Amino acid sequence: MLTYELKKSPGVPLYEALYRCLRQDILSGKLSPGTKLPSKRALAENLKVSKITVEGAYNQLLAEGYLSSREKVGYFVERTEHTAAPAAIPAPPLERPEPPMLDLTANGPAGFPFTVWSRLQREVMLDRGETLLRPLHSQGCPELRRAIAAHLADFRGMSVSPGNIIVGAGADFLYNLLLQLLGREKTYAVEDPGYDKIRKIYTSGGALCIAAPMDEQGVMPQALGDAQVLHISPSHHFPTGIVTSMARRQALLSWAESVDGYIVEDDYDSEFRFHAHPMPALKALDRQGRVIYMNSFSKSLASSIRISYMILPDGLLARFGRELGFYSCTVSSFEQYTLAQFLSQGYFEKHINRMRKYYRSRRDRVIRALETCPWAERMTILEKDAGLHFLVKVQTVLDDDALTALWAQCGIRVRALSSYYCGEVPPEDRGCLVVNYSGLDENELIRLNDLPPLP
Amino acid sequence: MLTYELKKSPGVPLYEALYRCLRQDILSGKLSPGTKLPSKRALAENLKVSKITVEGAYNQLLAEGYLSSREKVGYFVERTEHTAAPAAIPAPPLERPEPPMLDLTANGPAGFPFTVWSRLQREVMLDRGETLLRPLHSQGCPELRRAIAAHLADFRGMSVSPGNIIVGAGADFLYNLLLQLLGREKTYAVEDPGYDKIRKIYTSGGALCIAAPMDEQGVMPQALGDAQVLHISPSHHFPTGIVTSMARRQALLSWAESVDGYIVEDDYDSEFRFHAHPMPALKALDRQGRVIYMNSFSKSLASSIRISYMILPDGLLARFGRELGFYSCTVSSFEQYTLAQFLSQGYFEKHINRMRKYYRSRRDRVIRALETCPWAERMTILEKDAGLHFLVKVQTVLDDDALTALWAQCGIRVRALSSYYCGEVPPEDRGCLVVNYSGLDENELIRLNDLPPLP
Repeated sequence: MLTYELKKSPGVPLYEALYRCLRQDILSGKLSPGTKLPSKRALAENLKVSKITVEGAYNQLLAEGYLSSREKVGYFVERTEHTAAPAAIPAPPLERPEPPMLDLTANGPAGFPFTVWSRLQREVMLDRGETLLRPLHSQGCPELRRAIAAHLADFRGMSVSPGNIIVGAGADFLYNLLLQLLGREKTYAVEDPGYDKIRKIYTSGGALCIAAPMDEQGVMPQALGDAQVLHISPSHHFPTGIVTSMARRQALLSWAESVDGYIVEDDYDSEFRFHAHPMPALKALDRQGRVIYMNSFSKSLASSIRISYMILPDGLLARFGRELGFYSCTVSSFEQYTLAQFLSQGYFEKHINRMRKYYRSRRDRVIRALETCPWAERMTILEKDAGLHFLVKVQTVLDDDALTALWAQCGIRVRALSSYYCGEVPPEDRGCLVVNYSGLDENELIRLNDLPPLP
Repeated sequence: MLTYELKKSPGVPLYEALYRCLRQDILSGKLSPGTKLPSKRALAENLKVSKITVEGAYNQLLAEGYLSSREKVGYFVERTEHTAAPAAIPAPPLERPEPPMLDLTANGPAGFPFTVWSRLQREVMLDRGETLLRPLHSQGCPELRRAIAAHLADFRGMSVSPGNIIVGAGADFLYNLLLQLLGREKTYAVEDPGYDKIRKIYTSGGALCIAAPMDEQGVMPQALGDAQVLHISPSHHFPTGIVTSMARRQALLSWAESVDGYIVEDDYDSEFRFHAHPMPALKALDRQGRVIYMNSFSKSLASSIRISYMILPDGLLARFGRELGFYSCTVSSFEQYTLAQFLSQGYFEKHINRMRKYYRSRRDRVIRALETCPWAERMTILEKDAGLHFLVKVQTVLDDDALTALWAQCGIRVRALSSYYCGEVPPEDRGCLVVNYSGLDENELIRLNDLPPLP
């Protein structure tokens, strides 16, 4: 809220003092064009002046063209010729409002526990006070790492030492650290199909990145060429949903041992399995210290709270301390301690249980909508049991561009499985659509009813 | 607080059900050795059982060696032979309590405005709700970037477009992005003397990093060899305190233009100038888009809230969008919006003014303590007008190691200027101590009185 010290000067009425303050801020660019001013009543209360004083100031600014007013909406700062250089700052690209659509590419964690989070944040500040301001341990605060280890023990049956955990502000940053730790002169293999972003990060970080082809059991070790680092999501591959088989896991661990390499295990949405008992993490099979486990709270809590972590095997951990221990941890201590409390007081478990129910019924509604849409007879839903997406195979003569364009005409955004491929797309993966259902607006599901006859 | 669902089973008393739950958690490592258990009363209340039930369970665990008790302190989990693998987890290195000392190497922002910050955080959650969960703009949220631009306009007289600002979780991460943007095949020059860390980050990031020697006007352009990127702090060099002269600034800008290079301007503690009007940023002189401005809220607010930013010239900004726009922003949306409010509602300015007064009187007390200590006649205080550190020149035959060892004997931690050098140390910079006064404990200043006679 705008706050000024309005000093009474002889001959200057209070409304004019306020008018001058506001004009100054508009001219200096502090109040930029388009900014909505507080309501007259709110500003009056805040400044402890009468509403008439604020009205006087606003009216003067309106008359001089510094403000505009929109009925029942409020007062807005105008772009004006008076404005000095700083005010001419162009506004940065804002989140543009999207037209209404059914977006099957969006990830949107819902149901964030604002009330609990807010309370824990306040408690952390009260309890820890000045100690929150101390420089952070480069691996993240011990309390959070202990809470993560306990969570993994309970939830994933993993036995992990908190001392091996490294907390970072998002996986992107951790991949950058990994490149420095493992060496960018090595060749990195990433799943094909897979996330473009992982490939981009390794490449932009200076490493050679190759595509690791997959069959229905997972990545094939014999096709890894010169790679010494393999990045996979064995529990639930995106976008195919493939779960790497136990035999393949053993084969991949042997491969890592034979090339003196490492496997980065991305366990990104292991919290959301609906039917089967999830397969244990690859990390749990790793006897030779070849697996780097990664996970984050992006899908399970919110991607805009930037907390991810990786677990290094002992050999790499020692090297991390020696060579990269100078890096500051990238996550704010306030949020690290808040999350530590959130985990250790059992709120995370409750939240996950709640979200699992929520997503399960969401997924059921999406599947029902697909099963009753005009294309239902020609569609097969694949891999519907795991994670926050599934595949839909469409029997059609259309190519994938034409297929997604047809959906786009109905206001449905969807990506074809083929668009996640880097190398050649196998024929059976044509005509496959990837349905991310965590971020869609359920009111828009009716758009599926408008799909035109399928050629 | 520990929470269990205690189910009554036939033949199993309630205290034993609780005992089993606790033992299970101790064996699994969820309750790690050394953990303090809740008081009997508190746990009883939490579990809605009688205090006698809890007492029964605790006594059983005591008898079996799972717990120990300390009179009037409480119950603690024991390290026990029973414990299975996960319980053998070694606790991660905790912040070790330091013995009392006068630490002249520590940086400690004090006076964090907890009350205001906590309130703004709550307001941000209430006001913005679910919109906080949306994926972040890769450059940081527009509101924060606008608030930073307005702050720089007001405070540093800089005209900056919010669209050119990139927010990141600490300078370390931003340097990593810069390496990817400018190219790690280039040679990077860093000030000598200077922060070891900056050198380490560029080197670990894969670039060749050379030392840029300085004279009293700043870095010397003729000594930059093959460098195409120069990292400097022209407003206030650490640790010498040198302010780069206007002539030298122009010469460095011409150098950048002539080698088709860039200057990274680290404006790290420009908020804390006490006497002189601070010199404008190098960025403000840059007509050719050669300067990348960097600053952070580490010194001005708290280093454990990880918010830094850089300002790219237009040419680099376009390339950033094309080549690195896939990176997620590393700062939590919750804290970005909180800081945006903190800046735009004028709290930051008030905080800085308060801290400036605080640090000024702190510095005066440190200088007074130095001026009245046994070595006073042989010491000259240099550069006392700027920033949060200054230099003390000691007339002595001792070398720098012997000098700092002598202080260490009195419980004073201090670094010699020479220890910040990468190349040769000029003779006049021997016998110089760097006094960081922001993080010291004033009660320990009396240690200066115990300095032994100076050889």
